[in-house]
Amino acid sequence: MKTVFSEKHKLRDAKGELYQGEFVAPFECPRRAEIIIGAVRNRGLGEVLEPADYGLDPVMAVHDAGFVDFLRTFMDDWEAAGFKGEALAPCWPSRSMTASQIPLHVEGRLGYYALSTDTVMSRGTWEAAMSSKDVALTATDLVLDGKENVAFGLCRPPGHHAATDQFGGYCFFNNAAISAQHALDKGCAKVAILDVDFHHGNGTQEIFYDRDDVLFLSLHGDPMHTFPHFLGHAGETGKGAGEGFNWNYPLPPGASYQMWLAKLQDALARIQAYDPDMVIVSLGVDTFEHDPISFFKLTHDDFVDYGRRIATLGKPTVYVMEGGYAVEEIGINTTNVLFGHES
Amino acid sequence: MKTVFSEKHKLRDAKGELYQGEFVAPFECPRRAEIIIGAVRNRGLGEVLEPADYGLDPVMAVHDAGFVDFLRTFMDDWEAAGFKGEALAPCWPSRSMTASQIPLHVEGRLGYYALSTDTVMSRGTWEAAMSSKDVALTATDLVLDGKENVAFGLCRPPGHHAATDQFGGYCFFNNAAISAQHALDKGCAKVAILDVDFHHGNGTQEIFYDRDDVLFLSLHGDPMHTFPHFLGHAGETGKGAGEGFNWNYPLPPGASYQMWLAKLQDALARIQAYDPDMVIVSLGVDTFEHDPISFFKLTHDDFVDYGRRIATLGKPTVYVMEGGYAVEEIGINTTNVLFGHES
Ligand SMILES: [Zn+2]
Ligand SMILES: [Zn+2]
Repeated sequence: MKTVFSEKHKLRDAKGELYQGEFVAPFECPRRAEIIIGAVRNRGLGEVLEPADYGLDPVMAVHDAGFVDFLRTFMDDWEAAGFKGEALAPCWPSRSMTASQIPLHVEGRLGYYALSTDTVMSRGTWEAAMSSKDVALTATDLVLDGKENVAFGLCRPPGHHAATDQFGGYCFFNNAAISAQHALDKGCAKVAILDVDFHHGNGTQEIFYDRDDVLFLSLHGDPMHTFPHFLGHAGETGKGAGEGFNWNYPLPPGASYQMWLAKLQDALARIQAYDPDMVIVSLGVDTFEHDPISFFKLTHDDFVDYGRRIATLGKPTVYVMEGGYAVEEIGINTTNVLFGHES
Repeated sequence: MKTVFSEKHKLRDAKGELYQGEFVAPFECPRRAEIIIGAVRNRGLGEVLEPADYGLDPVMAVHDAGFVDFLRTFMDDWEAAGFKGEALAPCWPSRSMTASQIPLHVEGRLGYYALSTDTVMSRGTWEAAMSSKDVALTATDLVLDGKENVAFGLCRPPGHHAATDQFGGYCFFNNAAISAQHALDKGCAKVAILDVDFHHGNGTQEIFYDRDDVLFLSLHGDPMHTFPHFLGHAGETGKGAGEGFNWNYPLPPGASYQMWLAKLQDALARIQAYDPDMVIVSLGVDTFEHDPISFFKLTHDDFVDYGRRIATLGKPTVYVMEGGYAVEEIGINTTNVLFGHES
């Protein structure tokens, strides 16, 4: 299996993350991608390619232009306003406010476009996010062009929390959504996105919620108990033309692999019935039993097992990297899925 | 003029505030109330009284029961979950999420009930907020009972940003709204709330937005340029029965007293036409020219001047303390308004 990877991921190197009321070193750090690419190489998964440059058109196909402009210009605006260091939203359009206008002030714009405070804005984030979507798009084209049946986009920063016009949960551009739309724009009629990250793919759901040309399925920690807390319930099944094309599988704290696998099998059956032209897997390995911020119990071997099961779909498949914060074991867990797929 | 004051305000003594991407010592600090009560005493404004205990009934008359329960139990839940120190919302029901259920997890509940991250939850906050609404209610009853024509509730923490079920902007219970509802429940037909704090009184607006028995008027920094950013525009005039009973006067950065005064005169004329049984003034002095987080240009003398003008309404009046962060001058500015009223 070929891997697409860019060293530019390192440009996203925030100093701080707000976690349980304190600033800590970010869980989502450059070392994650370094460990994964090390495992790809050491274990001989296959060739590693540089991404092509796709520019902004495929980003604009799923994200709001004002949001993209915000991400591009924010750090300049922040520093021009005299603020130092990294930026977190101080307030946001809360449930008790109408947000009828987008503020002019840099902190107001930040709050408007943010969906969480765990994720700071920092210098280099824009460039890293641009390279990350190029990684996903290049992997997608490897499969779309018929050269490969499966490919791995080693994206960083991740993408599945990024919504049409909001960043957060360590995500800026929604790489999986951008890739799915790109596949549709290149002639696919239907794409399925299977999100196996520990967290609900709230951004991906939101982007495609009223559409039937993308089937979205997410296995994740119940939002009653974990981030993103305010989306990802089982009752969210799509709306309008999208009704029946969104499937959430929330699982409780401590859920075993057997519980998780039962949901995966349901999801795979739904994908099979949908018969997509391509499957995009939002691959987060924060389902691992020793992940520091998550509560599932998957072991190293379970990752091999579910990769094998996803492969049984027999569909052209692109894996795009999402989360996983047990950093020293993120390489083995990620490549276990990919080797499982190939086995 | 009599002042109502409780030393229990000191129990709200947070260590940190998130400001421009960093934790700083909170602008909203116990010394603010100490300086004000010192000025009240040194300048001989009048007798200082302890508040009576009103319990939770008047709070529940304007706030959501789940929200009140959250404020009461949060720090126990936070510490029981193993978290240390002060708490800030890591995420919230963003524009791209539905928040169909209130999370069970303590961080999810925090995000649900918060409207900003400037304001941490801390030990003692509940007790201080309880004393602060008692201060406002006691001052209100001094006037309602006909013993005084005007009284000063030296509230801390402040209240005007607190909404039906959200805290933030240094506010937990909306002292002005609780007092207005209390006055209505004791027989007043109409109450006007005049908010002269630098910031929009978003909570007060939200609480009474669809009602005609409370006229709300707020002079404040344009939310396009300052907190709370997502409410407080001139076009927000009320809804349903409340249409025409909400007046916002947003002013641009650097606005002079002459600009401010023109808006105050419009507001006073509207109050006069409304002919309320009582006027409650949300008194913030962060309009001061040297306030560290605000952008109006009022001088010491301007505070005297506008207190005198409010008095010309000839209505029973309760002043409840809101913001003001030029701490060393907060005493003179606050008492200048009150002496102006009496002159
Ligand atoms: Zn995750
Ligand atoms: Zn204020």
